[in-house]
Amino acid sequence: MDNRPIGIFDSGVGGLTVAKQVMKVLKNENIVYFGDTARLPYGSKSKETVTRFSKQIVRFLLTKNVKAIIIACNTASANSLEELRKTFDVPIFGVVVPGASEAVKATKNKKVGIIGTLGTVRTGEYKKLICEADSSIQVFSKACPLFVPLVEEGWTNTEITKLTAKEYLGELLKEGIDSLVLGCTHYPLLKRCIGDIVGENVKLVDPAKETAITVKNFLIDNNMINDGKEDKNHIFYVSDYTEQFDVLCEKALKKVYKPQVIDIESY
Amino acid sequence: MDNRPIGIFDSGVGGLTVAKQVMKVLKNENIVYFGDTARLPYGSKSKETVTRFSKQIVRFLLTKNVKAIIIACNTASANSLEELRKTFDVPIFGVVVPGASEAVKATKNKKVGIIGTLGTVRTGEYKKLICEADSSIQVFSKACPLFVPLVEEGWTNTEITKLTAKEYLGELLKEGIDSLVLGCTHYPLLKRCIGDIVGENVKLVDPAKETAITVKNFLIDNNMINDGKEDKNHIFYVSDYTEQFDVLCEKALKKVYKPQVIDIESY
Repeated sequence: MDNRPIGIFDSGVGGLTVAKQVMKVLKNENIVYFGDTARLPYGSKSKETVTRFSKQIVRFLLTKNVKAIIIACNTASANSLEELRKTFDVPIFGVVVPGASEAVKATKNKKVGIIGTLGTVRTGEYKKLICEADSSIQVFSKACPLFVPLVEEGWTNTEITKLTAKEYLGELLKEGIDSLVLGCTHYPLLKRCIGDIVGENVKLVDPAKETAITVKNFLIDNNMINDGKEDKNHIFYVSDYTEQFDVLCEKALKKVYKPQVIDIESY
Repeated sequence: MDNRPIGIFDSGVGGLTVAKQVMKVLKNENIVYFGDTARLPYGSKSKETVTRFSKQIVRFLLTKNVKAIIIACNTASANSLEELRKTFDVPIFGVVVPGASEAVKATKNKKVGIIGTLGTVRTGEYKKLICEADSSIQVFSKACPLFVPLVEEGWTNTEITKLTAKEYLGELLKEGIDSLVLGCTHYPLLKRCIGDIVGENVKLVDPAKETAITVKNFLIDNNMINDGKEDKNHIFYVSDYTEQFDVLCEKALKKVYKPQVIDIESY
């Protein structure tokens, strides 16, 4: 048994959708969440910068005595997981590996679509992992930079969002995909709108759930599960606080956790 | 005469539209430009964080021996100008003061609209300055968070952008404004689309031109103009480099300047 908390980090608040799945699948675990709200978003930034930021965050989380770390952010998972694992002596999980594995299971016609930020799509990580698992699968990727600001504006199902989704998803639909990976933590909040555009024959894959299951299995296999005998205590940190945190926290977790602000640049 | 360069900084690449006006109005001056591309955008972030970032940037620009500094970013101008002027012993200019002064001149019916980021609108700086200059003017503000990502996606005049502009500008038009301040460096790139929505009876005010004129007058009054005897040399720095810089540099300055990447967190 290991009652230390699990660290979860994200470029901002989108990772709260991953925290939600972890809370659901790993009911006894405590979470230390960090959102890099001062420097978000990561999706448009270079591999070098995303990796530098991620290293600072892992160093911060290690000061909170975490037993494992989940990179909730797809961009950081795709760009920095390997380098973080090389650098730090703590189990680290990204969302891309579980997401890719779920996509392989989901597709019947062997045509998978991936949507994400520019930074995620640029790495080709989802495509690489899916093709390694099954080389007969064709993968079609599309960066959708406007989806995150649309969610943050609260326009999750407006005419403008529908038109944007049509514009982004049109090419993928023409390719005949039967599964679509929501490769960015904000996208599950657009599930209804995206679902309406792609139709019910295209399965939407949310990597968050599979990630939580992967971490659960790891903790069980390594005898590191929290025994649940102590009171539960989730703690939230951000690098910048505005009310937007509360709004998205309420939306994702149905509860507002007040975050502490820390200076991530000093780590 | 003072042949030292002028420092210009912005949260990213939008400030290149201000650099363009400075190059036009102050033909003999050299520019040292810094774009905080690793931590952009500033528009959604708190006053404290924007001011902390701005201080790091001023410290960096001072190492480049600048004779004056222009804050090209509306969000940083609105949130941090006062604090920067208190902290540093170098002439510092924002875009909000000149923009407000231009709006006062532009309006005939005394009804002015302001559009900008959440962070700019939240400060109420434009409104305060305009009302101080003429208390009979009514000011109506609207944050337009989607305009920046729409420009960065290259969708400057699509159906989606038109619908978004209609949504954001509808309220201001109902108030009967006759002038509209483009209170964010990206917005001049949407001039055509915004102009179509508001109609030709609403004057669009771009603070960049007036800012360049303000700085020119200051340099003349203080005998600090560059004598133009040395070769011109504009230098560009960013905190993160991706090809997006080249794209927007080409769009704003009709030329691609290759930027140097620096670690702004160490200043």
